[in-house]
Amino acid sequence: MKQIIIDLDNRSYPIYIGKGIAGKISELFRQHRINKQIALITDRNVSDIYLKTFVSRLEKESFEVFPIIIPAGEKQKSWIRLSAVVNELVKMELPRNAAIAALGGGVVGDLAGFASAMYRRGINFIQIPTTLLSQLDSSIGGKVGVNFLDTKNVVGAFHQPKFVVSDVLLLKTLHKREIVCGIGEMLKYGILSGNEMFNFLSENVYRISQLDEEVIEETIFRCATIKAKMVSEDEKELSKEGGRVPLNIGHAVGHALEALSNYRLHHGEAVLLGLKIESEIARELKILPEKEFKRIIEFLNGIKFKPDISYIQISNILRYLAEGKGGQKTRFVLPKRIGQTVVTQNVPTKIIEMVLRKYLI
Amino acid sequence: MKQIIIDLDNRSYPIYIGKGIAGKISELFRQHRINKQIALITDRNVSDIYLKTFVSRLEKESFEVFPIIIPAGEKQKSWIRLSAVVNELVKMELPRNAAIAALGGGVVGDLAGFASAMYRRGINFIQIPTTLLSQLDSSIGGKVGVNFLDTKNVVGAFHQPKFVVSDVLLLKTLHKREIVCGIGEMLKYGILSGNEMFNFLSENVYRISQLDEEVIEETIFRCATIKAKMVSEDEKELSKEGGRVPLNIGHAVGHALEALSNYRLHHGEAVLLGLKIESEIARELKILPEKEFKRIIEFLNGIKFKPDISYIQISNILRYLAEGKGGQKTRFVLPKRIGQTVVTQNVPTKIIEMVLRKYLI
Repeated sequence: MKQIIIDLDNRSYPIYIGKGIAGKISELFRQHRINKQIALITDRNVSDIYLKTFVSRLEKESFEVFPIIIPAGEKQKSWIRLSAVVNELVKMELPRNAAIAALGGGVVGDLAGFASAMYRRGINFIQIPTTLLSQLDSSIGGKVGVNFLDTKNVVGAFHQPKFVVSDVLLLKTLHKREIVCGIGEMLKYGILSGNEMFNFLSENVYRISQLDEEVIEETIFRCATIKAKMVSEDEKELSKEGGRVPLNIGHAVGHALEALSNYRLHHGEAVLLGLKIESEIARELKILPEKEFKRIIEFLNGIKFKPDISYIQISNILRYLAEGKGGQKTRFVLPKRIGQTVVTQNVPTKIIEMVLRKYLI
Repeated sequence: MKQIIIDLDNRSYPIYIGKGIAGKISELFRQHRINKQIALITDRNVSDIYLKTFVSRLEKESFEVFPIIIPAGEKQKSWIRLSAVVNELVKMELPRNAAIAALGGGVVGDLAGFASAMYRRGINFIQIPTTLLSQLDSSIGGKVGVNFLDTKNVVGAFHQPKFVVSDVLLLKTLHKREIVCGIGEMLKYGILSGNEMFNFLSENVYRISQLDEEVIEETIFRCATIKAKMVSEDEKELSKEGGRVPLNIGHAVGHALEALSNYRLHHGEAVLLGLKIESEIARELKILPEKEFKRIIEFLNGIKFKPDISYIQISNILRYLAEGKGGQKTRFVLPKRIGQTVVTQNVPTKIIEMVLRKYLI
């Protein structure tokens, strides 16, 4: 079992990464002095496979587990679903010293995390991510929240978990599509971190897609290490260009595509496309040299992923990006080279449009 | 203008107290580098009297003000109203660097504060309390939140304001009933703090009820000073007996009465009754000596307040207290003497019932 510490004064916490470590879940709960009552939030897909096992492991050590099962899918990351979950917590009268555990992917983690941030003004929260994307990215760093109507992540909190348990064996049951999603965020870490990480990922992306346990474990460890540093420096994303900000590479276009596909594209898929399109934008703007651009594109071409997004209107993407977040133009994080990014709000619409035309006709 | 600092590292902030200081509101906004966009949340009662003035003061200094006006009353401190307010914020696309200001009493402050805690994971928040209760108590300390169905304050956050502006001239337009509410929480500070504060309040309670500006200003300053110390020691109420905990004196029975009256009793009125009933419970338990008990009762007898609460069933109060918060027995903070409290979960139901019978037949 590997361990990474997110260093945030009295909110510091460990991420445990390993094969089969979910088997030690009640030990970890005890070690972190989690009280006996636990609301376990999960979705239908995950609960079909894993819920019984987790509940019996915890109950054997006399934890009381109250499962809350939500439907699966990105649309559940909503204010309405949050209201329903809070209603469950209130009805079950979960005490302030209890804990909420998220067993699932990014949607479950973000929703359960936000519920635990607000319930009784904040109770203990534990992340047990079950997807590649959530193990290497979204379970770390305390960003939680939901969408409100069509606006992504517009309400939420920074609520750090007490600990994160990433068991790579849980990934065995993932669909191919979920693996591609993880590879999207993974590539992000390659571009941000530098040549060593980028080359490691390039050499291993096939083995990762085949769910080679050793390589996956090492990959999650490396991504989590990079994120731990960024989060420790800039917990609440207050930096203008440094800290957590580079983590948003690929996400300007990615979020637009995700929302405008009406969530037919999953988050990781949208990020993958976002990284491709934003790299091309960076090249057009002469921010990213041709040689570096080619390295990114070669990596992307190695991934089997050809989504049909022809139903998305270019004009809608341009409007989404122009309106931006809360009346401010969208901030782009663009690659300058492998290992360096620039932040800009001044990307000419013409350039975005030109690049989009290659992908969407 | 007086000033008190709430000392919380990088979340420290000042409380400004004075006569007519709301006239300098845009100066204070500038001084604290509040950006130009401000969502101003208020209720219909307050907006009828003060909204125009505040908006024009701010607009004169080129702030952009977006008013959100909610209905008045304790029932508005609800998840449903919060949803409506968040909807407004999302629709107006308020940016992350904007601010939310609460202009009103405790309900507006708690609701607006929670909205600003979650909107874009937390934006700047300013408290402009307009009632005695909110100026001397609820606007200070960052406890924000709403009720969910019948459960009081079950969702919320600790979200400190950037600053608090308590202009005692705003109290001129208060109804008698709102003044009584303030006196409830005020007496709390007298009991918690010790003889000096208790005697000051006893001597001045009539002048306070007549809204004598000098005395009111001094009272708010003293209450805020006491609360500042408690909040600085224990921001998130993690202490078991010290820190913020004594602030809950009168609130065990108070919350029960408030909820079971279906909010016909206002919060401060319920606290006033709660202080009386809990003092009597403390006397019965031999925690509070007769002499000290009489001082509290004398103070209470000086206040003109004879609410009819005969419609509340004693059995319902007992059940409310037995069920407590999230399946844990209700924690009572009881007076031991003027200046000292004890915390206990072991108050025999028989004693509570006996005392309640004196007030409710």
